[in-house]
Amino acid sequence: MEKGKLLYEGKAKKIYETDNPEQLIVHYKDDATAFDGKKKGKIKSKGKFNLEISNIFFMLLEDNDVKTHLIRQISETDLLVKKVDIIPIEVVLRNVAAGSLAERLGLKEGTKLNRPILEYYYKNDELGDPLINRYHITERNLATEGQLKLLDILGFKINKILSNYLKEKELLLVDFKLEFGTDSNGNIILADEISPDTCRFWDLNTNKKLDKDRFRRNLGEVEQAYQEILYRLKKDVIV
Amino acid sequence: MEKGKLLYEGKAKKIYETDNPEQLIVHYKDDATAFDGKKKGKIKSKGKFNLEISNIFFMLLEDNDVKTHLIRQISETDLLVKKVDIIPIEVVLRNVAAGSLAERLGLKEGTKLNRPILEYYYKNDELGDPLINRYHITERNLATEGQLKLLDILGFKINKILSNYLKEKELLLVDFKLEFGTDSNGNIILADEISPDTCRFWDLNTNKKLDKDRFRRNLGEVEQAYQEILYRLKKDVIV
Repeated sequence: MEKGKLLYEGKAKKIYETDNPEQLIVHYKDDATAFDGKKKGKIKSKGKFNLEISNIFFMLLEDNDVKTHLIRQISETDLLVKKVDIIPIEVVLRNVAAGSLAERLGLKEGTKLNRPILEYYYKNDELGDPLINRYHITERNLATEGQLKLLDILGFKINKILSNYLKEKELLLVDFKLEFGTDSNGNIILADEISPDTCRFWDLNTNKKLDKDRFRRNLGEVEQAYQEILYRLKKDVIV
Repeated sequence: MEKGKLLYEGKAKKIYETDNPEQLIVHYKDDATAFDGKKKGKIKSKGKFNLEISNIFFMLLEDNDVKTHLIRQISETDLLVKKVDIIPIEVVLRNVAAGSLAERLGLKEGTKLNRPILEYYYKNDELGDPLINRYHITERNLATEGQLKLLDILGFKINKILSNYLKEKELLLVDFKLEFGTDSNGNIILADEISPDTCRFWDLNTNKKLDKDRFRRNLGEVEQAYQEILYRLKKDVIV
């Protein structure tokens, strides 16, 4: 499978056409950005680590009957995926207060939430990806009421699967972002990625941050954090 | 009924105890603030106008079976009300894009919404009254799921009543904020005020702003706008 026309270049990925109109190639870059692109940098080997980490999660989710865009890896940094129409909503799940939630509700970072919190953000760089509710979504025709109900169910289900899995790896899933798309049959499937770029992972015992917050907040050992996540996820497989 | 101890002084109102532990006196001030208190000023006779405007709306709502805190007016700027525990959620209803909604969704101010939009804001000055969703509300114990359902129903109902009423006065109800409280029996009743401080009113034909936006945006003729609203609401009664 070879890369065709470059369809889109995002902050962390490039998307290429393929010979098959229902399939795309996603290239994972080492580029890192934060704060709506105001902070820019590179994280060595991030593309490779994220692709592999995300694949592990997506395969785990497929095993648990969550449909994803994943077809197969074709190189260290290239992934073959099903083409979908992305629903322009970022579905965020949170188990522990951090980042914008801590600010919004005046909670101390690290506060364990009583129940998982689900949030919708409008995937729109120009508007700064604002928090939105279901009335905003309906007004902007971003998704139907029925699709939203499914996103909620999938969001909470994925949170449960990933949280339990990561706990076994001595990792706390603080929060994460999901993106979904509709395939040519109108089915909703999980797209984008699940990686230290899109999640907060803390060491379960020390609370050490092992995700993009190390880049955002200049905490150092950024590559090492991404590598550590991959190492922990693959540990069982290797042993 | 005489004013007792000053319980609370807000940006636009003072709240006093009375001899009756279930009743309070609300004093309407002429002080005006905007942008989280960063802009300050006075609007001549605002207290008097707002009290009278708000009373007209609250009596209209009572006539339509919406329970409110209203008992009776005791002076030009003082109102006797039922004491409630305020639910710290601002319920905002919108019919036309303006202010923060226009910004959030990238809509041109004045865009007619397909359906009314309901929003919850966390009534918390320190946090800047952020937009929140029902998961945030549950986490912070601001209201129960059952209470939220009732707030939604009341919000849309009040929007319908006020929109229709104002249309007869050649006024467009662009958006408005509601606050609710629970009385000593746990019943949810409408509290706070409904006035040009808490609503956007536009002339139905010219779109001229007749509300606090004239103060926020330095449009001039601020007092005249408040007076104009009161004049239109009382017109039928006087004739």
